[in-house]
Amino acid sequence: MSFVLNAWYVAGWSSEFDETLAALEITGQRLVLFRRSDGGLSALEDRCPHRLLPLSKGRRIGDTIQCGYHGMTFDGSGTCVRVPGQDNTPKSANVRAFPVEERHGVVWVWMGDPTLADPAAIFEIPEMSDSGWHAHHGGHLEIRSHYLNVAENLVDPAHVSFVHPTTLGNAASENVPVHVSTTGEVIRAWRWIRDAEPIGFFKAFGGFTGNVDRWHYYDLHLPSTAVIDFGSIATEKNCAEEDRGAGVRIFAIHFVTPVNEHLTVDHWMHLRNTAVGDEAASEKMDAMFRVAFDEDKAILEAIHEAEQRPQSRKPVKIAIDKGPLVYRKRIRDLIAAEQMDDLGMAISPAFVHHD
Amino acid sequence: MSFVLNAWYVAGWSSEFDETLAALEITGQRLVLFRRSDGGLSALEDRCPHRLLPLSKGRRIGDTIQCGYHGMTFDGSGTCVRVPGQDNTPKSANVRAFPVEERHGVVWVWMGDPTLADPAAIFEIPEMSDSGWHAHHGGHLEIRSHYLNVAENLVDPAHVSFVHPTTLGNAASENVPVHVSTTGEVIRAWRWIRDAEPIGFFKAFGGFTGNVDRWHYYDLHLPSTAVIDFGSIATEKNCAEEDRGAGVRIFAIHFVTPVNEHLTVDHWMHLRNTAVGDEAASEKMDAMFRVAFDEDKAILEAIHEAEQRPQSRKPVKIAIDKGPLVYRKRIRDLIAAEQMDDLGMAISPAFVHHD
Amino acid sequence: MSFVLNAWYVAGWSSEFDETLAALEITGQRLVLFRRSDGGLSALEDRCPHRLLPLSKGRRIGDTIQCGYHGMTFDGSGTCVRVPGQDNTPKSANVRAFPVEERHGVVWVWMGDPTLADPAAIFEIPEMSDSGWHAHHGGHLEIRSHYLNVAENLVDPAHVSFVHPTTLGNAASENVPVHVSTTGEVIRAWRWIRDAEPIGFFKAFGGFTGNVDRWHYYDLHLPSTAVIDFGSIATEKNCAEEDRGAGVRIFAIHFVTPVNEHLTVDHWMHLRNTAVGDEAASEKMDAMFRVAFDEDKAILEAIHEAEQRPQSRKPVKIAIDKGPLVYRKRIRDLIAAEQMDDLGMAISPAFVHHD
Repeated sequence: MSFVLNAWYVAGWSSEFDETLAALEITGQRLVLFRRSDGGLSALEDRCPHRLLPLSKGRRIGDTIQCGYHGMTFDGSGTCVRVPGQDNTPKSANVRAFPVEERHGVVWVWMGDPTLADPAAIFEIPEMSDSGWHAHHGGHLEIRSHYLNVAENLVDPAHVSFVHPTTLGNAASENVPVHVSTTGEVIRAWRWIRDAEPIGFFKAFGGFTGNVDRWHYYDLHLPSTAVIDFGSIATEKNCAEEDRGAGVRIFAIHFVTPVNEHLTVDHWMHLRNTAVGDEAASEKMDAMFRVAFDEDKAILEAIHEAEQRPQSRKPVKIAIDKGPLVYRKRIRDLIAAEQMDDLGMAISPAFVHHD
Repeated sequence: MSFVLNAWYVAGWSSEFDETLAALEITGQRLVLFRRSDGGLSALEDRCPHRLLPLSKGRRIGDTIQCGYHGMTFDGSGTCVRVPGQDNTPKSANVRAFPVEERHGVVWVWMGDPTLADPAAIFEIPEMSDSGWHAHHGGHLEIRSHYLNVAENLVDPAHVSFVHPTTLGNAASENVPVHVSTTGEVIRAWRWIRDAEPIGFFKAFGGFTGNVDRWHYYDLHLPSTAVIDFGSIATEKNCAEEDRGAGVRIFAIHFVTPVNEHLTVDHWMHLRNTAVGDEAASEKMDAMFRVAFDEDKAILEAIHEAEQRPQSRKPVKIAIDKGPLVYRKRIRDLIAAEQMDDLGMAISPAFVHHD
Repeated sequence: MSFVLNAWYVAGWSSEFDETLAALEITGQRLVLFRRSDGGLSALEDRCPHRLLPLSKGRRIGDTIQCGYHGMTFDGSGTCVRVPGQDNTPKSANVRAFPVEERHGVVWVWMGDPTLADPAAIFEIPEMSDSGWHAHHGGHLEIRSHYLNVAENLVDPAHVSFVHPTTLGNAASENVPVHVSTTGEVIRAWRWIRDAEPIGFFKAFGGFTGNVDRWHYYDLHLPSTAVIDFGSIATEKNCAEEDRGAGVRIFAIHFVTPVNEHLTVDHWMHLRNTAVGDEAASEKMDAMFRVAFDEDKAILEAIHEAEQRPQSRKPVKIAIDKGPLVYRKRIRDLIAAEQMDDLGMAISPAFVHHD
């Protein structure tokens, strides 16, 4: 198992969930989500405990779900409130409920131990609430690849020159070294390309005529949310690294959700300090993002497929791998820690000393 | 393996088999069936013993099948009668033949030890030969689910209220308890719903205007033939349980044939004591049955798919499970008994005492 | 593993390869082929050693391939010539190159130990360079069957009577015995059908009106190239076996390439001593071959599918199996010898005596 479970993952945009029963899968676990009459969301295990029918194939009866096979009924907390044909509703008939939260129009579900679910840990950056910034929910992409392939791509500026030559990258960046640093739960990979022709994206949105200084800061928040701070400023302005707010600046945000070992969903949105309130600009940016993300998807699906084949040799590591390697190590450590915790809980009674 | 082998299973309707070679699979074994010139049916293992080509891909030469690859030829008893290129026909070249019988236009094949095949054990009920009853062959449904899921559904009246709310059930029955009893090879689950609005089916066919007493008797004949005796009679007639012949009465019969561990075919027909000789009524009933059986199919395929996933907990049992649980236990016992017999045959020489 | 690796296999016709990157798979190994600016062909392992992206998804930069993910670049010998973001190009970053040769418009790749690749061992027969013979490249067929099934069919004249009754065979040959002999790397199965009606093929191309003597010589060159010398001559000419050049004679050549354990590609061409230079005749023959080869494909795919099922008994052997049995034994011996060689290389240091 390669999933961090004690984490908030994005289930979708708030606008996607209403009173209907929505089936989805995260970290290999099937969920049914629905909006209750009080406006809140419930997320339950999508499996009737009786004959395993997905509850999403049943129907809403008020704020409960009635199973489509024998009518067992569950409220939004997963408690079984009715078993047709008998009076009692045994506790073993309850289904698991998953903590679910909404922030800035994004729906987050906690897939691990519910007692550890801390809403304060949900991803948030100040620009999401800043009226000087325009927020736009993009779309989502289903990628038939392992989520670590998808997420590591988002702490890997080096691929941009080769995968996105017409949108997000160009040849000027091919040999520019990448810096990597880690702060808490965030791994950052970044580089500046100074005094070069603007890339397609900033030709379209920046209105630049001469050369620009361009930056990419890839912040990968564990386990799998990426903020790509990228932008450009006229080279003549001699911009310092910390002053990039003076340039045209965009945060492309990717919420990477592992569906299972072979499928990943990437919900993407952006924040920008330019064209605030201009929805036509949002659409144009989305169109460019879509071209670029489809380029990623093709690569990520091909490498996932290649990884399933027998391998006679280990892959080689190269200099630009630093971000992805740091990321994968952090994920391995998180998973190992969770497994130790499970083990600890399981074996602790054996270590209790009775005297 | 979860199949009872020493049993008669339905291969199809008599009208479906003629001189052409029909390929089918029952209990994971591939068969080729064809009608001989004497009018009888032969059922052979669908596998040339030489290079494994299915014999159904060969051709009929008189009452024999000639393999499509090298021309090895087999008669209706499975005996190899020709090996092109050589004079002898070794006994090892014979293919297995399966006992096959026809009754009331239904074709039955015995999948186990042929020495145990007793034609007298083939399913039959008196109403099949009674001119006061109308018999109508319906159709068949391929269900991507394990046959035990399909068959247990046919000794489970409780699902009707939730799966078939517009055809075979309605809300009045939701909490009516189910009785279960066993007589020999038949497991019966039944209940009466007294003094309630007629269900859609009997609104259409019974001509009822006021409330009715409605019954469901689910007789599951091991291993997997179900007779569902259901009907209605005006409540004011105060019908006794044993007098239901006085009402409008229908036997829906399901011949459940396990194709393999993941696919089941359900051939269904009905018998009725009303609208005798009225083929338009047969068609109308078939149309309603089809709606209901498609509802079952959707559920049964969903639970089969769910059963293939890893499970962290055992399913819970509820009161209305009695019929299905009794059924599954009987099937397990039958399979265990067959395996003991196989073992007994295999090891018996070791127990012979030589003195 | 059931592949002979130290062998030349056909990748396709020379006309199929140009500057574009062609992906294919042989003996379970993925290759990328491309024509260099010097006109020669390169065949590389289709796998970037870094993140496993198939190189065929990258792009040509001069005579090199640049990987589509991070731009690692390889020349036609598999040497890594560039790793963007660093100055050195480690040897471990090289990809495997496969010897590749062209003969008579056919592209051959050596899949095993490159030090053993001997271009002189590539299949060739004198008629390929003889102006008295017309050579015509046919097409290729993808067959979802193991290559041993496909190849053994080409040293098995007995199937022709039953699989190809309207094109390459007819009933007259059903019981004619097959002779089998082996000379070096060639297994020959053959038979003459004397004084019989011409088959469809020679009715169309031989212009025969009376009975003919017909021959089939199936020469299977290890591991999997077949030359089927077949032809007819008027019976009244009393043709000796070695004088068949006096008749209408066709060599159907099959280059059988194992893609993997479940897929085989058969590239087929023919040579003929009749209708030399007549392309309309070539097309007509191709059309007839296609009918026959599709008949084989249907059989070979059905037996491969049957072979994947659990088997309770061993297949029986019959007299006409001699060619296929000799062939399979030779292949097993070749594979065992390769494995011994690998083992020998691996363990030889342990046997070195130090004194």
